[in-house]
Amino acid sequence: METTPNDPGKKLTDIGSLGEFGLIDHLTRELPIRNPETLKGVGDDAAVADIGPFLTILTKDLLVEGVHFDISYTPLKHLGYKSIVVNLSDVYAMNARPLQVIVGLAVSGRYSLEAMEELYAGMRLACDKYGVDLVGGDTTTSSMGLTLSITAVGKAGKDQVVYRSGARPNDLLFVSGDLGAAYCGLLVLQREKEEFKANPGMQPRMDDYAYVLERLLKPEARSDIIDKLNQSGVKPTSMIDISDGLASEVLHLCKQSGCGATIYEEKIPVDRRMAQTAHEFNIDPTTCALSGGEDYELLFSISQQDYGKVKNIEGIHPIGHITGADQGANLCSSSGQLIELRAQGWDSFRRKEGR
Amino acid sequence: METTPNDPGKKLTDIGSLGEFGLIDHLTRELPIRNPETLKGVGDDAAVADIGPFLTILTKDLLVEGVHFDISYTPLKHLGYKSIVVNLSDVYAMNARPLQVIVGLAVSGRYSLEAMEELYAGMRLACDKYGVDLVGGDTTTSSMGLTLSITAVGKAGKDQVVYRSGARPNDLLFVSGDLGAAYCGLLVLQREKEEFKANPGMQPRMDDYAYVLERLLKPEARSDIIDKLNQSGVKPTSMIDISDGLASEVLHLCKQSGCGATIYEEKIPVDRRMAQTAHEFNIDPTTCALSGGEDYELLFSISQQDYGKVKNIEGIHPIGHITGADQGANLCSSSGQLIELRAQGWDSFRRKEGR
Repeated sequence: METTPNDPGKKLTDIGSLGEFGLIDHLTRELPIRNPETLKGVGDDAAVADIGPFLTILTKDLLVEGVHFDISYTPLKHLGYKSIVVNLSDVYAMNARPLQVIVGLAVSGRYSLEAMEELYAGMRLACDKYGVDLVGGDTTTSSMGLTLSITAVGKAGKDQVVYRSGARPNDLLFVSGDLGAAYCGLLVLQREKEEFKANPGMQPRMDDYAYVLERLLKPEARSDIIDKLNQSGVKPTSMIDISDGLASEVLHLCKQSGCGATIYEEKIPVDRRMAQTAHEFNIDPTTCALSGGEDYELLFSISQQDYGKVKNIEGIHPIGHITGADQGANLCSSSGQLIELRAQGWDSFRRKEGR
Repeated sequence: METTPNDPGKKLTDIGSLGEFGLIDHLTRELPIRNPETLKGVGDDAAVADIGPFLTILTKDLLVEGVHFDISYTPLKHLGYKSIVVNLSDVYAMNARPLQVIVGLAVSGRYSLEAMEELYAGMRLACDKYGVDLVGGDTTTSSMGLTLSITAVGKAGKDQVVYRSGARPNDLLFVSGDLGAAYCGLLVLQREKEEFKANPGMQPRMDDYAYVLERLLKPEARSDIIDKLNQSGVKPTSMIDISDGLASEVLHLCKQSGCGATIYEEKIPVDRRMAQTAHEFNIDPTTCALSGGEDYELLFSISQQDYGKVKNIEGIHPIGHITGADQGANLCSSSGQLIELRAQGWDSFRRKEGR
């Protein structure tokens, strides 16, 4: 009999007892259909959408146990929630609206049915919050661990889509929210895990870190920023979501747009609580913002003439401007030095190599 | 230095040396765009399709090492090819045409860059053959093995989509091609692997099994049958592709359509070479066809009045008819007995449990 650490008396159900079809049926029962564009959800060879005269947006993300999450400190409900949100974030970063998600789940026998229910509860919550339909997918066993594969489908008007490639010299660069906190949350959880290993009787001290932990474990996609930009009549010239750290994303926009960029350290939005945690770990808060990743904020460029329309939008911050390609991509530090931006963000293969 | 068993002198490239973005760029360079509906492929937060006034069809399949394939006898190029084909098969089974695929790849450090190139070469070949566009995806490391997640997107006219739920009593049931051979191919490979373990110097005897091995390792999706049905002006009342064995798929159609069905053992199409191999393993060929799975043929029902339009289509075979739900789903054996159909097809969780 397997039990959960949180509820040692509770009997758990072996996934194998349901069979493959039983597990899918169980996890996807009573899935609501929220969008009239969703004609058919789970239960056939494929889902069917009717997106009419709009463009279809497709994106996919994989989340792998031991690489993207550590199950010892990631609640499964949060993991489910986040797995949906990171994909929706990619759709919003195209200036589009997500409509459907399709979920692939490879799971080893060491997970119980109740664990998968928790995971799906988080996915359902995210679908509910963002008004998207979970329309099916594939569920299978794996020889080890848990792998999630989410594909999101969105729609956009024909002239509405924003690519990474549209930035032009003199455009203004903005980011939403604040940066670096998710990485600090990860540092806290890793430290607590080590301390717990050394002293299993300890109580984790999490209260001081609520903000950075929430940023890591339950990120949100910035649909609100997309709405506000649309309401202001502003279409960004380029946009990307910040999953690998600001530096990496600025370099992506520059590369795809054939431009350079200058961003200003003092303009990069950081939260006081993030900075405090960063100092505790002897890390420069700017480094967290530039290289930490997993913030799921939006980085976008707008034409200078649109500045008046966006300057009163809450939650977005000008951090610099686009330049010619010959000037490269640089950070102007608080002390006035120009430092070339490098992509030192989350890079799964290199990180693994460095272990 | 890692080397391949086939070419021991060849130096292989560690995936870690490219970094995550490097690997994606490398694997997806010069991907052709074949469909005017594909506006944007790899390289942004998401791909963009323009499906105009059509319906969008979405399907996803996961393939997990150690569960869906054994890398010791699955050439990576074949695996790549098959991973695409099995998804396209789901789109065709909706009476739709696939346009795009999006690929997720979780891969451990024990695979080389050259191995991933082989995998992608197979995917590209399948995309080429079926005229679909590979429009991106996500590539990441995994702590163990190889997991592939493929999502296919297709389009269909608004009145063209065929669901599993449309079968009605007295409709005729057809299957395409022949059944059971992929499972016999698996039996052969498993036996050769055991013999190779016992005697590493042996030469595998594969020539006699070319047909069943090809059916397992390089299946095709039956786009030709979909084309012929459309050309004949016949829209099936229900359709499903045969991935888990004929019995399981007949039960799916019956359940979703609220019907029963009777199929006739002597009508089930089996290939002589499959039957020969089945006998060698002391298995009834009918059992292989009913429960073997991975054939990727089409099972569909048509209205009786359409029989005249399809009777001359090559490659499809009437195997029975739809009945009322009260009659259940049965096989009429060659000796005239009625045997209740059971889903004993490929079921990953139960199979694992039984190990």
